[in-house]
Amino acid sequence: MKIIPGPATLILGVDPGSRHTGYGLVGSAGGRLEMLAQGRFSPPAAWPLPRRLAHIHQGLSELLSGHRPAAVAVEDIFHGPNIRSALKLGHVRGVVLLAAAQAGAEVYEYAPRLVKSSVAGYGQAEKSQVARMVAELLNFRGDLAEDAADALAVALCHAGQSRLGGLGSAPRNSRRGGWRGLTEADLAALVNSK
Amino acid sequence: MKIIPGPATLILGVDPGSRHTGYGLVGSAGGRLEMLAQGRFSPPAAWPLPRRLAHIHQGLSELLSGHRPAAVAVEDIFHGPNIRSALKLGHVRGVVLLAAAQAGAEVYEYAPRLVKSSVAGYGQAEKSQVARMVAELLNFRGDLAEDAADALAVALCHAGQSRLGGLGSAPRNSRRGGWRGLTEADLAALVNSK
Repeated sequence: MKIIPGPATLILGVDPGSRHTGYGLVGSAGGRLEMLAQGRFSPPAAWPLPRRLAHIHQGLSELLSGHRPAAVAVEDIFHGPNIRSALKLGHVRGVVLLAAAQAGAEVYEYAPRLVKSSVAGYGQAEKSQVARMVAELLNFRGDLAEDAADALAVALCHAGQSRLGGLGSAPRNSRRGGWRGLTEADLAALVNSK
Repeated sequence: MKIIPGPATLILGVDPGSRHTGYGLVGSAGGRLEMLAQGRFSPPAAWPLPRRLAHIHQGLSELLSGHRPAAVAVEDIFHGPNIRSALKLGHVRGVVLLAAAQAGAEVYEYAPRLVKSSVAGYGQAEKSQVARMVAELLNFRGDLAEDAADALAVALCHAGQSRLGGLGSAPRNSRRGGWRGLTEADLAALVNSK
């Protein structure tokens, strides 16, 4: 019998991007982690920016109202190749945070290095390694877009940070709270091993 | 008798900022420009960013649904002091563009230099000069917050760009369309001189 996780134990990871915004919904039930949904929003590049933002906002809002996750996890980014791309990314990220706030979900932000280290074991892991570990940890077979893998990685990072069972308890702020990295083995022990 | 401008001739100028987001609603009726509303949204800095964004989005959405302007005008910014502040500004700007798209308003973006030159006569004008000219052009007496003045300036820039009477016609893209600066006298001739 499959246990359907309740909203309090659902985490929506989001990877905002100006071309693709990936998402991954992870739930914990009975100490197991399961992937409930993953994908990405890719509004046509030819659309004007406001319309692209509306597309992403609508998609995320539907996901949020449909599943009502208690937590939305995103990478905390404070650097980038240049001002222009930071500004562009900021637009999408703002819309993601807005959708979370409107849905009443708590937002958690994690440094990219922390996300990589909690999923792949070290902070400098390649994107492909992160994707492989995400698929393995969630027992996923099939195609996983890079953006969706990144979104699932930050959801898993939050699951590790909040130690799963603690998801229903008072939220800890990743920026303030002391963080102690999970090893690959720690995480593997937490996930559904079926 | 005061002529109330119809929605097709209303322009909402917005000046997004991480602390204050200014707005100014300008309407043209019978070849005259009038200011119909101005102000700013200043969500407490202590609030988490998602909640601040939701505050700005709600305020703008209410303005947009209440007045139904055909056009939303914002500054087109591609530079800033650093990546971090560009990203921060991007968050707010994304939410502004989203609100406009959701309300079905056309978004117009203008380079800061163009905004300054169309209102104050030259592109390097000081903020205080812009504010003074905005107040004068709109025949406004009273306190005008800097953010609201900047928002009204970009709305006036759009009014000049679209030559007022042309507001109801097919939107011209400020980035593509050829722009010919209005002089101070041009603009003054367009505004309500009562």
